[in-house]
Parts: sequence; structure tokens; C-alpha cells
Amino acid sequence: MEPLLQPDARIFKPLIIPEKILMGPGPTNASKVVRDACSLPMLGPVDKELLQVMDDCKAGIQYLFQTENKYTFAVSGTGHAALECAIMNMVEVGDRILVAEHGVWGFRAADMVKRVGGIPIKITRPPGENFQLSDFEEGLKQNSAKMLFIAHSESSTGVIQPLEGLGDLCHKYNCLLLVDTVASIGGCPVYMDKQNIDILYSGSQKVLSCPPGPAPISFGSRAVESFRARKTPPVSFYFDFDHLTNYWGCTEDPVRYHHTGMMSNLYGFREGLRILAQEGLGNCWNRHLKCAELFHSTLETNGFELFVKNKSARLPTVTAIRIPKDVNFAEFKSHVLKNCNMDISGGLGPTAGLVFRVGLLGENCTTARVDMLARAMVKALKFCLKK
Amino acid sequence: MEPLLQPDARIFKPLIIPEKILMGPGPTNASKVVRDACSLPMLGPVDKELLQVMDDCKAGIQYLFQTENKYTFAVSGTGHAALECAIMNMVEVGDRILVAEHGVWGFRAADMVKRVGGIPIKITRPPGENFQLSDFEEGLKQNSAKMLFIAHSESSTGVIQPLEGLGDLCHKYNCLLLVDTVASIGGCPVYMDKQNIDILYSGSQKVLSCPPGPAPISFGSRAVESFRARKTPPVSFYFDFDHLTNYWGCTEDPVRYHHTGMMSNLYGFREGLRILAQEGLGNCWNRHLKCAELFHSTLETNGFELFVKNKSARLPTVTAIRIPKDVNFAEFKSHVLKNCNMDISGGLGPTAGLVFRVGLLGENCTTARVDMLARAMVKALKFCLKK
Repeated sequence: MEPLLQPDARIFKPLIIPEKILMGPGPTNASKVVRDACSLPMLGPVDKELLQVMDDCKAGIQYLFQTENKYTFAVSGTGHAALECAIMNMVEVGDRILVAEHGVWGFRAADMVKRVGGIPIKITRPPGENFQLSDFEEGLKQNSAKMLFIAHSESSTGVIQPLEGLGDLCHKYNCLLLVDTVASIGGCPVYMDKQNIDILYSGSQKVLSCPPGPAPISFGSRAVESFRARKTPPVSFYFDFDHLTNYWGCTEDPVRYHHTGMMSNLYGFREGLRILAQEGLGNCWNRHLKCAELFHSTLETNGFELFVKNKSARLPTVTAIRIPKDVNFAEFKSHVLKNCNMDISGGLGPTAGLVFRVGLLGENCTTARVDMLARAMVKALKFCLKK
Repeated sequence: MEPLLQPDARIFKPLIIPEKILMGPGPTNASKVVRDACSLPMLGPVDKELLQVMDDCKAGIQYLFQTENKYTFAVSGTGHAALECAIMNMVEVGDRILVAEHGVWGFRAADMVKRVGGIPIKITRPPGENFQLSDFEEGLKQNSAKMLFIAHSESSTGVIQPLEGLGDLCHKYNCLLLVDTVASIGGCPVYMDKQNIDILYSGSQKVLSCPPGPAPISFGSRAVESFRARKTPPVSFYFDFDHLTNYWGCTEDPVRYHHTGMMSNLYGFREGLRILAQEGLGNCWNRHLKCAELFHSTLETNGFELFVKNKSARLPTVTAIRIPKDVNFAEFKSHVLKNCNMDISGGLGPTAGLVFRVGLLGENCTTARVDMLARAMVKALKFCLKK
């Protein structure tokens, strides 16, 4: 028995991954403890030790989300997988879904709703701005929507969306509230239960400083009730709410094998959640706010213009900065990287070519990092304008 | 800013993962090199170093699958995610899909087909047996099916399905061939191109000895043509063929951000593929065959009964053994584990309660392991019968 095709030479090369300081909108650098955990031994898909890790993750996510929902787990995929899990479980053919679009995430959520046969109805704000409660109320009044999607952290523009009162408003119109917190969770206050959010999801590679995947998600009682009232099964087996909540031990039923949990990621994620709990969520929120304020004021003092005009609409975790006139972004980025090994990103979707984006996330959110990056940016600006 | 809910005490406990020798149907133990790779530093989602890792993985998968398909990549999820990726991209509402069911995988594939609005038409064989070409031909003749699903490795029963001639037969009836090789790839000969397989997928945690996720998949030209002829977009954004093949650099278009690749898993997977290429696919196939033959003959000599009667239908990588009369499986399993720290599994789906399953996979497929396990099983049998 011999193969017919030989392997390409490139697979034999040693694997070398450079250690950069990732100051884009994510992933951020993973902490040593998390990375070490990712190399722990494998387990069987329903081994009690793995189920214990999953149970620990559930407790950690409940704290992170500030919820007591028992239907709290993590999807074996990245943040986009969690969004799709939410949409595939909640949306049926013909369902009207209100999608708040003020950047790339609303755009993508609407695309996903359409794919499963739902009808996305968009309410929009210009990139760099957020929504008022009255914007939502108008949308809710005019459309009998089953669910509203909103990104708490619109990382493509650097905007934060206040959530206070939104859950109650949605419920007044018999509408569920689905919130994306991929770039904000752990870095900005979110109270899933108190804010009456029905479905909340996030990612692992931002404030939690873990590798990408798994993606935490939680469903409140209204969402579960709506899921139970479905006329058709969800389009996905992999993301199926019933299967996943059984596998994650959210129900009273004995745990059945559904898929093989991504255990190395779960080990790292569990440790990321432990580190967060040890710091304390309040301290972590405050650290992100403090660093962002320092960063923003330092930038403005040095002639940079933030993309988001309104201070209260600025996302602490991801900052969008207008590319200064006469500056070539590639040159700027590469100057910063050479100077301090810090990697910053360009815009995305509506901000592509307009801004660069800086993440102050988890491990990398310290005043020392802010200071180092701000100095490097000032130098790079001078360099780019001098040429 | 303070949280309202405090973290549960269980998240603060140290994370301890026992090192067991995993001799079930997977995951198998990951090799040291792979585990170390999983703890390498993070990168941005479209950083050139990550795209290089993905490109290396592509070359490794092409070798593993014995294909030159350019549409070869890995899904950010586990084996089930790859199956769903195949089905969601290939099946539209009303499409008739022939599903060969002789264990749990056919059952699940049919479930997935139904969820996206396809019509699964089952052809079945009793658990423990495989299909003849004539079984398929009958199914193909009677139904104008768009695609046929078959598990090459039916790991719930320990059966291998010969693939010779099946691709040509399917194409004679204008039908695509989708093959699951999660438990067999690398351990048994598969020639995607020569065998005219249109879509092939697998997992990472079996013969490749990597953590679960990512899941490799490849689409041949007939499959791509059929995808291009779709009337509606696939139900999934996360699994969308066009988005994924762009992100994986399979097309001429510049790479766009789609989702954040699960890089720590990709690092490990890349190293798993390198280790395989270094051993050589032919050597790896032969090693798995040789160990399986030794294991099967030792078991039969010692009074165990294999679930699969027909020798040529036995899967080398996963063996199903009938639970001997008067033996309590839980007691047997626990005796083996205590004796030699080797963990074996029970049945699944149609074999639940009937068999136990042993995997000889990747790192754990050596004559020394076979010898140690067989001795432990003989001892456990004596112990269980004596009581």
C-alpha cells in the first residue's frame, strides 16, 4: 500500500511563529497560563474530567455574563459560530428580525438571518455613531419583529452601544434581544440578567486573552420558550440548542455524546475565565476603561483624531483612529511594528481605508502598553509626514 | 462599576487533567510536538504568518487525502462541523440525497440533510456489515439522487467501506460522492483523486493525534460546479464554501477576513500533518493495518468475539468487540484502566450496550500498546467472570 502523491516540501519546514504584541481588535496575546493549559493531555468526549472542565467554564461564563441562566455553554467554534448558533436556533422561515446595523456586525447578522429564511429588517446609524432607545422603539413599533440583533461592541468602528432599558423595551413589543459582546465582554460592564438580555454571546480571543474558539453563549428563559415553540428543527445539527445544552449538562437528562468538545481550547478558556475571576470583573472593567481614557487623551493631545466623536459612544476595548492626512497606513503600521513589536490593524467594512484600529484587550490592556504604543504612534506619525 | 453576581468557587480550583492512554475510538493522545505547538503565540486573523500555516495545512491535507484539489482547507470546528459544511454547501431544499446507513454516521448525515430541507433516501445494511457496489447501484438507479453519503470508517460498528469503483458508479448516475473518513484517514488507504471522490472530510483527533478541531475537507471540480449552480446561498455563513475558500487562499482573489481562524489548533494540526508526512503515508497505513491484525488475532485467540464477522470488513483503526456473556462492561473498563491506565469505550448508537470499542490510532497504534492492552483485557475478562 503506497500513496500516489508525495507531500509538498513546505510541510517539512519547521513551524516558527513570531511573538508579536497584538494591539489590533483581536486576537490579543494569550497569557502564559492559558497557552500552557492548551497543551494539557486529551480526554474522551464524555469523560467526567472533561465534563468537569465544561462545568467550570459554564460557571465562569455565568460570572462573565452576569447571569444565572442554566442554558449557558460554549460553541465549538469562534465568535461567528456563536452568532450563527443564536440565529439558527431562534430564526425560522418568514421570521422578521430587526437588525441594528452601524458597522460590519449588523451587516453580517442580517446576512445570516437571510440565509436561514428569516426577513432581516435593518435600522441603521452612520458608522461611528450608536443608537438611541427611540431609534429602537420606532423600529419595534413599525415591525412586529421576533428578535432584535445589536452589537454591544461594534469593533469595526470603535463604538459601544448602551444596553440600559433595551431589554425591557424589546419585551414591551414581544421581541427578543440578541446581543453581540465579542469585543467588549469582560472589558465593559454587561449585566445579562439585570439588563434583561435574552441571548448573549461572545468570543474567547479578546479580553479573555485565550486562543480563538470556543465561543460562550447564554439563552434566557424567554429565548428558550421561543425555541421550544419552533415549528421546524434548527437547520444545524452542530449548533442545535437541544443537543448542545444536553452535552453541556444544562438539563437534567444524562449527558449524551453530541460532538467531540474542543478540549485543548476548553482548557485554555477555563484558565482565562479563572484569571478573570481572580482579578475580579469590576477591576477588569475599570482597568479597560482607565487605559482607554489614557490612550484616547494621549492620542488627541498628539494630533490624532478619533473616529468616534462622541466620547460616551467610544468603546474602551477597541479604538478607531482616523488615518491622518498624507499618511500611508501600511508605512505607519510597519513603522510601529519595527519600533516596538506592536501590531495594529486597519479598518474593516465601512471603515476600511479610513481608520486604523487599536485594541486594548485583556493581557495587553495596561498603562505601560498604552504608553509604549502611544509613543510609537507619535514617532511613526512624524516619520510618515516627514517623507 | 461593580458586578452584581460573584463567581462560583469551582472556577478558582486548579485545573488538573489526568494523563490517560486513550484507547477508545478517539480522541487519541496528542503527541508532545503537537501539544507544544498548540501553545505557540497568537497571530492576527489575516497575518501572513497565519496564512502560511494555513497554506502548509492545505499541502498536508492534500497529501493526506491524496488529492490535488485546490479547494482544500479546514473548517474551524470538529469532524461534525466538516460534515455539516459539506451538506450545507451541497444540499438545497428538495434535493434528494442518498444516505448509506450502517451505523451512527449515516443516521446523523440523514438528520443534517433533512434540517436544510433536503430529502434523505436511506439505503441500509445491518450494523457490522458494509455495502456492496450493487447495493449502491440499486439505490442510484431507483432515485435520481444529487449526492451519496457514505462513511468510509463506520466507527460505531468497526466497519470499513471499500471505496473502489464507487466514485465512477455515482458519476454514471450523475450523483456526487461525499465520504466521511473521520476515523480512517491516515490509517487506511484513501485516494481521493484516483477514487473519484467529490467531497472528502475528516477530523484531527484520530490518526493525526491532534486536539479536536480543525476538520479538514476537500471539494473536487464536480462538487464545485454543483455548488456554483445553487439557486440559493448556503444556510450558513460560518461554513460558506465561497467565504472559506477565499480565507484559505484557494482562489486567485485577495484573502479577506471571514472569521478568526482557530490558530492554536492550526499550529497543532500543521505539526500533526508534518509528523505524518515524515513517517510517510504508506508506512502509517501499514502500521495501522499490522497493529490491527495483531490485535484482532490476539483477541480471538483469547476468547473474545469481534463484532464484525467478515475479516475484510474490519476497520483497522477502530475495533468493536462483543461484550462477553456475564461481563459487566463498566467493571471490565475500570479494571483495564486501573491495570494499565488505558481507557477503552463502550458502543455508540446501534452498538450501545452490545460492544466495547478500541481505537488503535496514531500515536497509540504500536505493537507495544496492542500487547499491553490485550494482556489487560485478558486479565479483566478473567476477573469479571470469576466474580
